[in-house]
Amino acid sequence: MTTIPLTVIGTIHTPYTRLENMPIQPKGAKESKGVIELFPEYSEGIKDLDGFSHIYLLYHFHQAKRTELTVTPFMDTTPRGVFATRSPLRPNHIGISIVELAEIEKNSIKVRGIDVLDNTPLLDIKPYIQNFDAVAKSRSGWMTASMEEVAKKRSDNRFVG
Amino acid sequence: MTTIPLTVIGTIHTPYTRLENMPIQPKGAKESKGVIELFPEYSEGIKDLDGFSHIYLLYHFHQAKRTELTVTPFMDTTPRGVFATRSPLRPNHIGISIVELAEIEKNSIKVRGIDVLDNTPLLDIKPYIQNFDAVAKSRSGWMTASMEEVAKKRSDNRFVG
Repeated sequence: MTTIPLTVIGTIHTPYTRLENMPIQPKGAKESKGVIELFPEYSEGIKDLDGFSHIYLLYHFHQAKRTELTVTPFMDTTPRGVFATRSPLRPNHIGISIVELAEIEKNSIKVRGIDVLDNTPLLDIKPYIQNFDAVAKSRSGWMTASMEEVAKKRSDNRFVG
Repeated sequence: MTTIPLTVIGTIHTPYTRLENMPIQPKGAKESKGVIELFPEYSEGIKDLDGFSHIYLLYHFHQAKRTELTVTPFMDTTPRGVFATRSPLRPNHIGISIVELAEIEKNSIKVRGIDVLDNTPLLDIKPYIQNFDAVAKSRSGWMTASMEEVAKKRSDNRFVG
């Protein structure tokens, strides 16, 4: 078994201190404000980021302690293979979210549309690049919920611990 | 310094055995075929994935051995903060690519539009979900190249080692 050690490079601050009742996706949290505090030794790396309207955050699902290969997603009632979901209970507890960049001040990045727990450990920031990341036409399998349903949906405790 | 140990869950096989002359993004490699070999102990987790036309791959940039907070991207001549680029030389050497899912057979996932090196260690697979991941309108900072330029661009050795 090969292990790759990742280093936490910052902390994501959000209004969500508990998993219950948290938006399940950025699109369910359009106005939720968060602050990404990049540790000062990495500040040089965010130069030019302010030209992008959206960024990917890669982070550690720090409250997910176990792995389950079959899970029932928030937006479904049928158990699904974990790689066909965004559940935190995946083999590596890594999450990605696309958020809107609001403002950068030194090593503090203000964002909107954040759907992660307060104090989530940050692993990476990447620019959302329209030419690379927008898929013109795609098919989303079991995930047939409308945007309205996703926006209304809130999490519960099923993926904790 | 907090470290999070990730486990390699599979191997990405592609036609690219050297970084030189590799497409720099999936959109520059539309017809490039790859096979993701998920280690058998994780096979249960890909149930239902076949309903999705596109998937995210999270992987380890295994040939990037150093970190540089300022880099000159393939598509640019100006040095940029690494978090405003997709360069492998980021603090955690984690890459993400959106690829098209072609076929799943047991623990083998055939994909199209792959832009990573042969034998890249796989860390996660997530479904591309239109409702969560498509950004209707975004601004891509310094990255002003056209799709044609991105598709033609090939990598070189600048991020190796």
